[in-house]
Amino acid sequence: MPTLPLSPLDATTFAPFGQIIAPEHAAQRYPINDGTSERFHDLARVDTASAEGRTLLSIFRAEPRSLPFPVRMLERHPLGSQAFVPLDPSTRYLVVVAESAADAPKAFLLEGGVGVNLARGVWHHPLLALDRVSDFLVIDRGGPGENCDEISLSETWTLTM
Amino acid sequence: MPTLPLSPLDATTFAPFGQIIAPEHAAQRYPINDGTSERFHDLARVDTASAEGRTLLSIFRAEPRSLPFPVRMLERHPLGSQAFVPLDPSTRYLVVVAESAADAPKAFLLEGGVGVNLARGVWHHPLLALDRVSDFLVIDRGGPGENCDEISLSETWTLTM
Repeated sequence: MPTLPLSPLDATTFAPFGQIIAPEHAAQRYPINDGTSERFHDLARVDTASAEGRTLLSIFRAEPRSLPFPVRMLERHPLGSQAFVPLDPSTRYLVVVAESAADAPKAFLLEGGVGVNLARGVWHHPLLALDRVSDFLVIDRGGPGENCDEISLSETWTLTM
Repeated sequence: MPTLPLSPLDATTFAPFGQIIAPEHAAQRYPINDGTSERFHDLARVDTASAEGRTLLSIFRAEPRSLPFPVRMLERHPLGSQAFVPLDPSTRYLVVVAESAADAPKAFLLEGGVGVNLARGVWHHPLLALDRVSDFLVIDRGGPGENCDEISLSETWTLTM
């Protein structure tokens, strides 16, 4: 089985798949509320309005996975983006994405409270929490239409750290 | 100055103002991802699409306030809802809301990772973090139009715990 190593995480390497949600990735930041708060503005392209869609806020409570982990399948949401934001800064998780179903997947380690927004239609593995049961705020699309495709990969990739 | 005491927080008392964002407030919960996660589904009514609006994801980094705190003003966002979800379960914050600009405000203490979604147009005080600098994911509306009204209250309320 081929090995799927971690890719370095930065806005450029992640750009084909979506956005990294963290203060240091804000294009705009400014003081609000008489200077008592700072707004790190518009960190992700939420794309949930197609085909009579609306934005959902949900919480996913994820069991931890153990490594090495066999990546055998991917899914995508053709009608909307999907963002994951950990609700505890100690949460670590893995994001596995692919530019197409034929391409080798890429794996990224997310930690330190950093979230991701997966663009509409991006192939990805379901949530891979590490270490412990972890809660994530998920911002995705509700509405009519079938919004999940799944594929089995032609080979299994072994995800390690 | 009149005192503004804390009101007990539950879905019924908070209903005039919006929704409480927490797993135990989910109307629907179900297993996903082959049973490795549980989805606490659709916890808030995100209302951001009016007048060519779109959903924004931002982070607010809030300085802590000290108590007793004088509540002298409120604001509202006539074009969209605004949700606040703390990014650390140890965060505590206060939410001050009013059914109308003429009504006495109500104050709620939020802790344990619990978020709130303020319905479109609800009068509220700007974010009141406690204890330490605190990060919140904020889900609100971007788009054309003026989306913030402010009023000075006819009397100052002293917020205590």
